[in-house]
Amino acid sequence: MRLLVVGSVALDSISTPFGDVTDGLGGSAVYFSVAASLLTGVQVVGVIGSDYPVAELDKLTSRGIDWSGVERQPGESFRWKGKYSFDLSSRETLETRLGVFGGFQPKLPTGFRNTPFVFLGNIDPELQLRVLDQMQSPKLVACDTMNYWIESKREALMKVIKRVDLLIINDEELRQLAGDWNVPRAANWVLAQGARRVIVKRGEHGALLVEPGGRFYAPAFPLEEVFDPTGAGDCFAGGVLGYIARSGEASSPVLRRAIVYGAAMGSFAVAKFGIGGFEGVTRESLLDRVQSFRDLTHVDLAEPIG
Amino acid sequence: MRLLVVGSVALDSISTPFGDVTDGLGGSAVYFSVAASLLTGVQVVGVIGSDYPVAELDKLTSRGIDWSGVERQPGESFRWKGKYSFDLSSRETLETRLGVFGGFQPKLPTGFRNTPFVFLGNIDPELQLRVLDQMQSPKLVACDTMNYWIESKREALMKVIKRVDLLIINDEELRQLAGDWNVPRAANWVLAQGARRVIVKRGEHGALLVEPGGRFYAPAFPLEEVFDPTGAGDCFAGGVLGYIARSGEASSPVLRRAIVYGAAMGSFAVAKFGIGGFEGVTRESLLDRVQSFRDLTHVDLAEPIG
Repeated sequence: MRLLVVGSVALDSISTPFGDVTDGLGGSAVYFSVAASLLTGVQVVGVIGSDYPVAELDKLTSRGIDWSGVERQPGESFRWKGKYSFDLSSRETLETRLGVFGGFQPKLPTGFRNTPFVFLGNIDPELQLRVLDQMQSPKLVACDTMNYWIESKREALMKVIKRVDLLIINDEELRQLAGDWNVPRAANWVLAQGARRVIVKRGEHGALLVEPGGRFYAPAFPLEEVFDPTGAGDCFAGGVLGYIARSGEASSPVLRRAIVYGAAMGSFAVAKFGIGGFEGVTRESLLDRVQSFRDLTHVDLAEPIG
Repeated sequence: MRLLVVGSVALDSISTPFGDVTDGLGGSAVYFSVAASLLTGVQVVGVIGSDYPVAELDKLTSRGIDWSGVERQPGESFRWKGKYSFDLSSRETLETRLGVFGGFQPKLPTGFRNTPFVFLGNIDPELQLRVLDQMQSPKLVACDTMNYWIESKREALMKVIKRVDLLIINDEELRQLAGDWNVPRAANWVLAQGARRVIVKRGEHGALLVEPGGRFYAPAFPLEEVFDPTGAGDCFAGGVLGYIARSGEASSPVLRRAIVYGAAMGSFAVAKFGIGGFEGVTRESLLDRVQSFRDLTHVDLAEPIG
């Protein structure tokens, strides 16, 4: 089934210990849809300036990404510039230029309003609410957020959380949101606020799903070479939502599988600059990566110790 | 089969946000053996001063811990004093008084020399080598180490690593040992130095096994209440070695199960001060905790995405 994502379509300039890139395709909606399109058709809602390299987006259309919800406005595109530490464990934002993204007002094309699966990327929660108001009874809505909105738009964010089926959030932001450093406890707090399920992204340490009556932990793939972590979390979300949309439902077993697909997408994302990690990734190499997850986590506990 | 541990038998004074304890039973050999004794008989080699509360150790004898290899010497016992940060994520050592442990010369009682499974706790690697010299062809030797020995006794430590079947080490120390911040790469470096297998302890993030031809990742149990992390790593090692000794062998499937038992032991360890977390833990509650691991990690990947 179809999947809709609302988020940033940006140009990223990234410096890592292994090299630099200037004005590469980036933004949460781009990372998300490049990953999700390996599993299902994706509709993108966003905004770009008149300087955006539209031909680069067009090249991705053949993957099954529908860019018709991306508005082109006069002015500059959203640009982010960041620099990673020598071990990639932390990064510094050198520059953020919102450009036309600063006045982003998501408008869903009529054909997008009944899309059953929705991901609200990391944008102003007031805009996330406006997107929800335009949707016609979606089957599942997931959202992301960040420290900036937790601090500045807490009230609107809590309204979003009440309305979503799945919050996908990183551990630091979850701690900040709940005001509790203990991650499992903070996740339960979010459930009490109305989100039906929470997936806590823990970077190289994997992801934890917390839902009423159950928890699931999936490690990240241990990689000997990590080149650029930018967008890994959005690609993870793209894998999760892509798999759910492909399945047409989000039962607990489906969601667990979806998280493994998300982890696989995250492992592709970090292999090269920007979306370059997905070059050459096919349905088959995706399945290979997912199968290697089984080898990584399989344990036979059947034998009792008596 | 029997299991031997050589390590510290100490008195710990611990300050956490939830309270304080003074001169509680601690030390790597004590934590290790309290956990391992839920699975097999344990022989301890260590040293205590004339001030050690021997009656407290004697209480643990009924669990199947043989203290006859612990020498009592005139002088003060090893004391450690530490204080945890508000979120337990870091700790500061306030005081270390080696006492009689400073001159520790491990001497194995004759009846301990043919014990098939051995854990060399975090002591001077030169002493670890002397213990190995006293053993009669053990089936499996595992060891731990720490930053202090990596810095001050690197040569002896590398000799130990060449001779052991299993290095159990935390991620920071592994990075320091290998001079590489990438954990999977650093673990492979250790294998190239001669250790047959490595288990990387990652605290609340779980543990990663790296062996030739395979990797296994086990999360830590997500706990809503963590009281005192002291000794969790030693209890983890006690669970791993205890399960291996109980099984009588360390094939890859056994080692994976052993790590899950280790994770269970770690989760008991942090529930109360010191070894208090093991009060009331039975074979049955251990099995319950291990079973809950299955719920936490189980995913059915059988269904192909077509």
